[in-house]
Formats: sequence, C-alpha cells, structure tokens
Amino acid sequence: MPLFLNAQDANFEADFAAFLGTKREDSPDVDAVVAEIIADVRARGDEAVIELTRKFDRFEVTAETIAFSKSEIDAECAKVSVEDAAALEMAAERIRAYHLRQMPEDASFTDDVGATLGWRWSAVSAAGLYVPGGLASYPSSVLMNAVPAKVAGVERLAICVPTPDGVCNPLVLFAARLAGVDTVYRIGGAQAIAALAYGTASIAPVDKITGPGNAFVAAAKRRVFGKVGIDMIAGPSEILVIADKHNNPDWIAVDLLSQAEHDESAQSILITDDADFGLQVVQAVEKRLETLERAKIAGPSWRDFGAVITVATLNDAVTLSDRIAPEHLEICVQDADAMAAKIKHAGAIFIGAFTPEAIGDYIGGPNHVLPTARSARFSSGLSVMDFLKRTTLSKMTPEALRAIGPSAERLAKSESLEAHGLSIRLRLDSLNE
Amino acid sequence: MPLFLNAQDANFEADFAAFLGTKREDSPDVDAVVAEIIADVRARGDEAVIELTRKFDRFEVTAETIAFSKSEIDAECAKVSVEDAAALEMAAERIRAYHLRQMPEDASFTDDVGATLGWRWSAVSAAGLYVPGGLASYPSSVLMNAVPAKVAGVERLAICVPTPDGVCNPLVLFAARLAGVDTVYRIGGAQAIAALAYGTASIAPVDKITGPGNAFVAAAKRRVFGKVGIDMIAGPSEILVIADKHNNPDWIAVDLLSQAEHDESAQSILITDDADFGLQVVQAVEKRLETLERAKIAGPSWRDFGAVITVATLNDAVTLSDRIAPEHLEICVQDADAMAAKIKHAGAIFIGAFTPEAIGDYIGGPNHVLPTARSARFSSGLSVMDFLKRTTLSKMTPEALRAIGPSAERLAKSESLEAHGLSIRLRLDSLNE
Repeated sequence: MPLFLNAQDANFEADFAAFLGTKREDSPDVDAVVAEIIADVRARGDEAVIELTRKFDRFEVTAETIAFSKSEIDAECAKVSVEDAAALEMAAERIRAYHLRQMPEDASFTDDVGATLGWRWSAVSAAGLYVPGGLASYPSSVLMNAVPAKVAGVERLAICVPTPDGVCNPLVLFAARLAGVDTVYRIGGAQAIAALAYGTASIAPVDKITGPGNAFVAAAKRRVFGKVGIDMIAGPSEILVIADKHNNPDWIAVDLLSQAEHDESAQSILITDDADFGLQVVQAVEKRLETLERAKIAGPSWRDFGAVITVATLNDAVTLSDRIAPEHLEICVQDADAMAAKIKHAGAIFIGAFTPEAIGDYIGGPNHVLPTARSARFSSGLSVMDFLKRTTLSKMTPEALRAIGPSAERLAKSESLEAHGLSIRLRLDSLNE
Repeated sequence: MPLFLNAQDANFEADFAAFLGTKREDSPDVDAVVAEIIADVRARGDEAVIELTRKFDRFEVTAETIAFSKSEIDAECAKVSVEDAAALEMAAERIRAYHLRQMPEDASFTDDVGATLGWRWSAVSAAGLYVPGGLASYPSSVLMNAVPAKVAGVERLAICVPTPDGVCNPLVLFAARLAGVDTVYRIGGAQAIAALAYGTASIAPVDKITGPGNAFVAAAKRRVFGKVGIDMIAGPSEILVIADKHNNPDWIAVDLLSQAEHDESAQSILITDDADFGLQVVQAVEKRLETLERAKIAGPSWRDFGAVITVATLNDAVTLSDRIAPEHLEICVQDADAMAAKIKHAGAIFIGAFTPEAIGDYIGGPNHVLPTARSARFSSGLSVMDFLKRTTLSKMTPEALRAIGPSAERLAKSESLEAHGLSIRLRLDSLNE
C-alpha cells in the first residue's frame, strides 16, 4: 500500500517531513572502479576503450568500427516503421519549435557615463550525449538532448550508446539522424564518458556531456566535471498529481503509474482534497497493476514510495507541492491555470485533465530532462542554455574611466590590491597630462 | 622569467599544448576531513558549529551571537570612511543596473494544434553566500554575489563570513547591508557550508550556496551539491591580454600584474604580434615588481605561470585565445571591437586600452565571478540565472491531444511504457464516446 497522509492529522508535520527525507535510491559506490576506468582510458586511449567494451558489452570494436558508419546508420534506420518514423519526426519538430523560443538574446547598451556594456551568447563547440543501452534506451531522450544542442548551435554533436552483444536500437539511430547528430559511437559505460571528456585517437574530445546513465556513468560524469561541463545527475523519476473529485480516478491512476513503471525507485504522489476520491484512485491503481506489463516495476514503486495526501483545501496542496518541489506536477482541478500560477518550485507543470504527463515525455515540446529529488528548488530542466555560455563585454571611453575609475581605484586600495589600482591610475593620469 | 612562445616556431604546437595542460593548483585532499565536519554539523547542529569555530577561528560564539545583530552591523558600518562607502554604493548601483537587464522573460504561446506552452522563471527561495575571511575578504565579492541574488528576487539571503579571533572587515558588513543581505553569520569553513545546506537550530537552511572559499570550503560545496545548488568551484584567476605595439608597455604590465597579485597560482598571459613590444612589457613587469606591495605573490605567479606568446598576425591571437578560453580577456588592438566579435570562448572581454580588467573587478557592472581553468568553453560567469530556475508549462485542449496524442502513444509503445500510452489513450477514447 502507498503511504496515506492527512494534512489535518496532529502528527502530519512530522510524518510529511519524514516522507520528504525518504531516500529512494541506493547508489552503489562505484567511484573507485570508475576512477580506474577513467585513468585507463586517459593512459591507453582506444586500446582501453576496446578492451572495456569487450569486457562489459561482450562485443568487439576496433578503432575503425567504433563509430557507426553512415551506411550502417541508414541500414538500421530503414528498419524503423513508417508510423514510428512519423511520430519521431513530429516529436523532433515540436521539441525544436519550443527550444527555438528559448534562445536568449545578446545585449549591448551604453550607460550614462558612456561605458558600453553587454553580453554575447555562444554555443559550446562540441557536445557528447550519453544514451543508455538495453531497457532504458529511449529514442525520446536522444531527441530531448540532441535537439536543444543543435538549436543552440553546437557545431559537433556526438552520441555514445552501448550496444551490448552488438545489438542496437534502430529508433535511437533514427532519432540521432533526425536530430542532426554527427557521430554515433557504439560504446557505453564510464569508458565512454572518459573518452568523450579526454579524447582518444578515434574519439574527439567534447566540451559538454549530457544524458542519463547508470551508476557508473553518473560517477564518471561527476569525475570529469570541470574538465568538461555536464548536465545534472538525475535521480529516479517523480510525479505529483493534484486532483479534485471531478476527475476520472482511472485517468489519475494511470498517470501515477506512468512514473511508477519507469523504475522501482520512482515516486508517484497524489494530493487531493477528497479522501474518497483518493481511495478510488488507489483502487484504480490496484486494478491496473493486475494487467500492467511492467507491474513488477510499477507495483514496488507504488507500494514503497507512492503516497496519497489528503488536504483540507486545495490551497494547502500548493504549499505542500512547493515543499516537495516535484519533477513533474500534474494539476487536475477546476481552475488549473490559477493553481499553476501559484506554484513556485516544480520542474514541469501539466495543466488540466487533458494534459497527461506522458505528453511531455514525448511530444509536448518542453524538455523531459528535469530536476529530481527536490532539486527544482534550485535548478531547471535541460534547455538550450545548457549548450550556451555567456561572455560579458565592457568597453570604457576615457570619459567613462574618468567617471567611475576613481571609485574602482579606491576599492582596489581597500582590498590591498595595488596593481589593480595602478592599472586604473596610469590611464587616468594619462588623461590629465 | 615567464614562458616565451613564438607561434611560428616549429615546436610551437607541442609547447602550446603542454602550456595549456599545465596544472597550476595543488588542491590539498581535505575531502575526508570535510566529510567528518559535515556529518558532525548534521548530527550535532549548533553545538558542532560552535566547537569548530572555537577550534579553527579561535573565537567563541553562542547560538545567540552566531549572527551579527543589527546594531553590531550598524556599529561596524559606521567605521567605513565616506569615500569607501561612496565607492561601494556606486559599485552596487552599477552592478544592480547591469544585472537587472539580465532578467529573463517568461513565455506563453499557443501553437497550431491549440496546445498552450511556455515557461516561468522563479527565484530560489533562500540563498547563502560564502565570504572568505582574512586576506581575501573582499567587499567587492559580497556585492558580486548578493546583488544578483537580490535582483533575481531571492527572498532570504544569508552570508557566512569567518571572523578569525573575532575580527571582521567592516567593508564586508557594509557591502552586505548595501546589497540587502538579511543575516550575516560570523562563521566560516566547511562547517558554515554544512550549516547553510542542512540547517541547525540557529541557522536556517538555504537552497543555493555561492561564493569563493579555500580548499575546505570548495570540498564542502562539492559534497553538499545535490542537497542544495552551488555555483562553480573557481580556480586561480587568469588574464589574457592581446596587445599590439600601439600600447604603453607599462599599462599592459600592471594589467598582467593585477591578476598575478591575487595568488601565486594566478596566470597572466600576453599575446602580441610584436616581439619587441613583448620584451618591453616583460621589462616593465620586472620594473613594477621591484616596488609592488604584493611582489612576493605576483612575482612567483608571473615567473612560474606567466607567458608571452608572439604571433605572426592578430588573427592568430584570436585562435589561440579561444583555445585558452580565458577567464578575463583584455583586447588592446586598433580595432578592438572587431576582434572581440570574433572571440568564442571567454568569461569576460575588456575592450580597448581604456578598459583595464580591474574596472570589471569592481565597478563596470558585469559580474567578476567568472569561469576559470578553460571552463569558459562550457560555462558562464555568475548572473541572475544562478538564482533563478525555470518551470516549463504545458496545457493541452481535447483537440490538441487529438492532434498529437496518438504520436506520443506510439512512441510510448515503442519504448514499452504501457502506462504512458494508456494515460493518453484513456483520454482520447473519452473524446470518441
């Protein structure tokens, strides 16, 4: 059974705090192994990558075959059905349209002292995207990572996808081609992250690495951070649904299960102002679990980490939601827009009964890579900004320096930084000569 | 002597690559100690913080005195000279004006299928700023961290500043008051970072921690990352000056020294197309080092990590600069604007002979917290964005779901995520009833 909480109970505050603090993920400590793998790839390059791929993926690559050739990609893409291809194309187009709107603007302005200030955005030159193999090899994730990179203007975009026993997912290659990925390497694990960060004879280094992965990949990303940029380290998926009684309990049940089916550590929470409705949803979940293909994943997730919280008024739901800071928030109440406007901390909000979260996973347009584990309090989902960086620009005229230089010189002296002050003073003195 | 490189030498490529790879910082491995300190603060709260402050800062605090009182702050601020106060006020005003322009816009639009999409920016609720004590206790850094936080709309802003032996810098408190900081705690080190991240009885936890610090502070920030957001982990400062012969060698010399005087690990590089001019700058640096107050810091920095690179044409300087991806880039050539426009990777650019980098440290307006160690290839300086996060918004109509839902359902099936598909199918079916 999921956890049942009632916000009007005397011990709710303590129970809710304990619930917020629940650790859902047991990350195995693979850091020592990963450190060795990275050192090996740095020292031996391709040779190490080839050996590690043989060991972990039971697959033979060479420096020549480490990347899929164009004809191999075309052959795999030909296996994709017309219907799947059309669906991926619609998804790519909608994701591209949304992310194009995110592109930030450069600025340049001259202020009252005559200083010209501003900034300019530019793209990371090369990015590498990690795509997991096996069960969680999602073509949708390829689009969600690669499309923003291309929209941002990344010149060279590489993917690493492990192909255990040589098997790859044609949809992943199709999505990569669709998004304009330049190179797809058939390698995975910490060795792929190390190769992307440091480069080998056959793999050019990149400046930024994004994309999900297992504990080895996550540990490797943490280790190469600084040498290259990385995106967030995502935890298991979460959904919070706020729903009143004017909803079909079965719809809400499958929405909750759509996160639970991702991972036994995923979390699905319902907040409602109607205890009876809550029970109806719980019953509907149980019913669906009888037949759901992934019941063996969704069941434990729901029983171990699921929760139904009853509140006195829907306003209380907003307060609790902000404390949870959910990755996905679905709002199924009468005036869903008004409630959405009150939310401060959430990765993505899905507004109204006809916006199931799954729309956002595939085709809505916004990114599905979102902050988990309450990190929506301080971070955002993946966007074009992850593939851009800002250079600030300053240009003084002699007059501008005369106006503000003496204050800078004063502050430099107060911080005992003489050369700082001198670099201003010499110029000011030249104006008085 | 600094390193001399000539881009036309046969072995330049190898020498330049080795130069790029030079490690300037020996970070002591304090991770084990820091892990203990964090665990201690989590377990014992205030008690641990008080004990550690006694041990490291030789100073007695209590839960009541851990924060400066308003009257203490006012008393310290009264010690600040009228001139210093005016300089800090001008700096705060200019930094505020620049960062106000950075505020990103929300978006909401309805697309061709009738889906309403968009995003909304919101501020982090509470932020904590670390300010080092002692030698590197810079009021300018208080402004550069606190002003963007306030502009972003952070509701609660706390500072931790160690006060070894009870001594504090009145200018730091003045800058904090000026920037609208709510609370200043007189504690530092890893224990301050732990207290900000996890909270104690007398220190409320924050959502984001920014600001520079020593190896202990940096290791603590790395460790609490995930629990809270952090800014970058900054390395030693760097400047690259690109200058032609039409410059005063002494001006360029003090510009190079203005980074060198920060830290023995700082790096100052000159790229010029005139070897004679390069030598004149080197001579001017030597001359200045004879009298510079911080010659004992600036001298070793210049000799160990400084470099003068001669190029055949100034276009080659652009290429090399992008490979260095400097934190600070000063462009002192005839058409400085045109060269600045060609640069892809730099934290901040200072354009023209009347824009010494020190202007940007204090008063220009752009932030002085900038990416070091070549990370300008993939990251940006501190900005209001560090204190904001984006929530994406999606709202489907029944018609929108009818238009794009089937493609999402198709993709869910291709990824074997049945509940995802069902959450869309149930709604589509209801429309056909």
